[in-house]
Amino acid sequence: MKSVAEIRFTPDPLLPEPLYHQIKEYIKQKIMQGEWTPGMRLPSQRALATAFKVNRSTIIAALDGLHSEGLIETNYGGGTKVSRAGWNTMSTPLLNWEDYVESGNHYPNLPEVQIINQSEYRCDIIRLGTGELAPDLLPQSYFQKIYEKLAQHAPSLGYLEPLGSYKLRQAISSYLADQQIQASPESIIIVSGSLQAMQLIAMGLLPRKSSVLVEKPSYLYSIHAFQSAGVRMIGMPMDKEGLLTAELGRYIRENRPSLLYTIPTFQNPSGVVMSDKRRTELIQTAEATGLAILEDHAYADLWLDEKPPLSLKARDPGSYVLHMGTLSKSVSPGLRIGWVAGPETVIQRLADIKMQTDYGASSLAQEAATLWFTEGYHDIHLAEVREALIRKRNLVLDILARNLAGAAEWNVPQGGFYIWLKLLNGTRPETLFRRALAEGILLNPGSIYDRFDQNHIRISFAYASVTELEKAIIVLSQLISS
Amino acid sequence: MKSVAEIRFTPDPLLPEPLYHQIKEYIKQKIMQGEWTPGMRLPSQRALATAFKVNRSTIIAALDGLHSEGLIETNYGGGTKVSRAGWNTMSTPLLNWEDYVESGNHYPNLPEVQIINQSEYRCDIIRLGTGELAPDLLPQSYFQKIYEKLAQHAPSLGYLEPLGSYKLRQAISSYLADQQIQASPESIIIVSGSLQAMQLIAMGLLPRKSSVLVEKPSYLYSIHAFQSAGVRMIGMPMDKEGLLTAELGRYIRENRPSLLYTIPTFQNPSGVVMSDKRRTELIQTAEATGLAILEDHAYADLWLDEKPPLSLKARDPGSYVLHMGTLSKSVSPGLRIGWVAGPETVIQRLADIKMQTDYGASSLAQEAATLWFTEGYHDIHLAEVREALIRKRNLVLDILARNLAGAAEWNVPQGGFYIWLKLLNGTRPETLFRRALAEGILLNPGSIYDRFDQNHIRISFAYASVTELEKAIIVLSQLISS
Repeated sequence: MKSVAEIRFTPDPLLPEPLYHQIKEYIKQKIMQGEWTPGMRLPSQRALATAFKVNRSTIIAALDGLHSEGLIETNYGGGTKVSRAGWNTMSTPLLNWEDYVESGNHYPNLPEVQIINQSEYRCDIIRLGTGELAPDLLPQSYFQKIYEKLAQHAPSLGYLEPLGSYKLRQAISSYLADQQIQASPESIIIVSGSLQAMQLIAMGLLPRKSSVLVEKPSYLYSIHAFQSAGVRMIGMPMDKEGLLTAELGRYIRENRPSLLYTIPTFQNPSGVVMSDKRRTELIQTAEATGLAILEDHAYADLWLDEKPPLSLKARDPGSYVLHMGTLSKSVSPGLRIGWVAGPETVIQRLADIKMQTDYGASSLAQEAATLWFTEGYHDIHLAEVREALIRKRNLVLDILARNLAGAAEWNVPQGGFYIWLKLLNGTRPETLFRRALAEGILLNPGSIYDRFDQNHIRISFAYASVTELEKAIIVLSQLISS
Repeated sequence: MKSVAEIRFTPDPLLPEPLYHQIKEYIKQKIMQGEWTPGMRLPSQRALATAFKVNRSTIIAALDGLHSEGLIETNYGGGTKVSRAGWNTMSTPLLNWEDYVESGNHYPNLPEVQIINQSEYRCDIIRLGTGELAPDLLPQSYFQKIYEKLAQHAPSLGYLEPLGSYKLRQAISSYLADQQIQASPESIIIVSGSLQAMQLIAMGLLPRKSSVLVEKPSYLYSIHAFQSAGVRMIGMPMDKEGLLTAELGRYIRENRPSLLYTIPTFQNPSGVVMSDKRRTELIQTAEATGLAILEDHAYADLWLDEKPPLSLKARDPGSYVLHMGTLSKSVSPGLRIGWVAGPETVIQRLADIKMQTDYGASSLAQEAATLWFTEGYHDIHLAEVREALIRKRNLVLDILARNLAGAAEWNVPQGGFYIWLKLLNGTRPETLFRRALAEGILLNPGSIYDRFDQNHIRISFAYASVTELEKAIIVLSQLISS
């Protein structure tokens, strides 16, 4: 795995020491303090020049200095590493942390995902791939009111119950009841976002070497919760009506999956809504075969034109469906509040593992989320967000239609954030990803969602501003057409 | 694993339906909604009677009704389960969620720990084992000021960087500098409490089947972060000066550990402070053998009589030490904020896994923690807490000396929360645990911290109130003496 160092320091031209010397001393201190350890690969000269905001020749001078002090070394492959010799003058058996980093059980993030995670914090970047509401769509002013309320009645700073705050579970229970989902507070667990829910499910419910059915493409391919638990993912075909339920019987017979993971509403990345008919068929198949379903409802509140069909959980005749929801997509990604509703046996098991994992979600976040629901902000906020998202969606669809007709195909999302763009002219998504990044535009190549995908990118109209969207989509169109 | 259902419902004597009927209908609804699933074991009649606040005969009548409707069944072993037959009248292949719960990779919590986790929320219990500050020692009023500040400048609701809020990392960097630990913000990751830090380290740095040296007894035995990652824990002897460093060489040769986990200051559960001499020896051994050290500094701020010796990290000549800290013990358990400082390679790897696990700690909690440090509350609060803890410690030591001299031995904690009580008269800790629980007192048997321990209990003077402490220690003394 490539180490991507975070660099915040920039040399000061007003100081008497030359810039290259300041950079040399900065890196030297990093090495002497043991923060940059033997074997750690330094970023490329180009990357260092960008990070320190200097010319490449300044970087070369700094590296030369470090070289001659024996602090770094260049191998013939070209990479520069912190050297083992220079780090410690005594010849003791050095700890090589690089080995540790290579040897843990858990998969690293996909390289593209790592680059995306890192690049998102560059201030010059247009985030055309980011599946989050734009900062100006986040309900800051409602949360100010929530903080005022918190200041008045000072909620507990202690640990909450294993399932999470009972008041929050009550609020979510009635939120779910509005969607015709029967789930009492005891059958709900609060989690730190739905990514954690999947981690808990992978660790707590699925045996090693079991398999899970997944739509293909799927968000689930972009994370490693299931693979890291030794669970195999089997992609199932889908079309504009969602999962091909007609194929389900065969997939179940052949793979005996322990679970089907689905995002039936505004699927990530395809934007597809599973039709009413397919939902019914899926539930019928679950009943007929004993298939367990994990329903990810993250985007359901974000319908734009009309309410989507009832969730799978609302149609669940018994307890085939584990239902996940979250505030990350519709309200606040940073709050880290999500939930799972399902049989109490399962919920208790997940709570037991959660207690072992992080001892529960932040009580402060849970208190804020409780007020979010009980003070009625959720619905007001959604109405506002919906309006803004419709505007942004239409803008993007307009520019695409004007610039890419013939060169690409795309869905018209009825909700959620995503446009799943199919490149028709042979442009490789990975090439496009790199070239767009060079132009300061971050997008998500399709291979993140389907390892073998060769012709899709996922773009989101939620995060970038209107001005950014206009600029980025036009640049993107040029890159695709050229 | 035994399912422990959460029951909040109590029947209403003012309603026309008899109590047993209300209980029957409540359980029936749970079963019909699929929240209590086939195979789920019901709590005992006694536990149900307590939960519903009725006589056992009322419970028997309710269960009889459920039996005759075929909704539950009793096996010859005596347990009552939700029946498969009654749950769904169609004879479809039922999903047995109990099987799922048994089959995940992750270990369940120890049975005692599960009982403790559940019982802590009983309102009639005295929590003599709980390693947390009492509610009245939590800095509610300072946090009210923090919420007011948050209301004024409305922090971001978006995701934060993979390493966590830069401002918080800066604050922690200077907090560490005050303790003579050099760690720049780039070498610090924010985690949701140190339990999560250990989970990330276990998943991200340690190969399966590797081994980790641990003090014995140790808190680490009470959780399954390492075992669930397939890592073996090897207990090392300790005495009043901490880890027996003289034994280290042999343990390293024989086990080639990938890490040593230690709580050098106010160890959990023994309360021991590793002496200055042993700390020096430990670091020397690390240098000589390339041993990686994970230092858990959770209790270090809670010194009572005098400042403890410098941390291992402050003595680290290079980068042998990963250093963990947390606000859970000294400030607020519910906030869920901790940190790890170490080589950037390691910190970046942990951040990558954290992004896959829960996408970062709650930004709200991080903003509050930043203000906690930057507004200077930390030191003021610690001075207040110290005074209160000294009072409570002295009280408990007094009562123990008056009532248990000869029957038990214990340490005089110089900081932290814990008294590690050795039973000298043959009383079994597990028996004591059960008998104390029957008297409404929750304590931690030593086997949680050392599987083979037969004669210790851990009591904490931090959580229970002065009145509760007086009552509980006297009852405990009687139980031990009788």
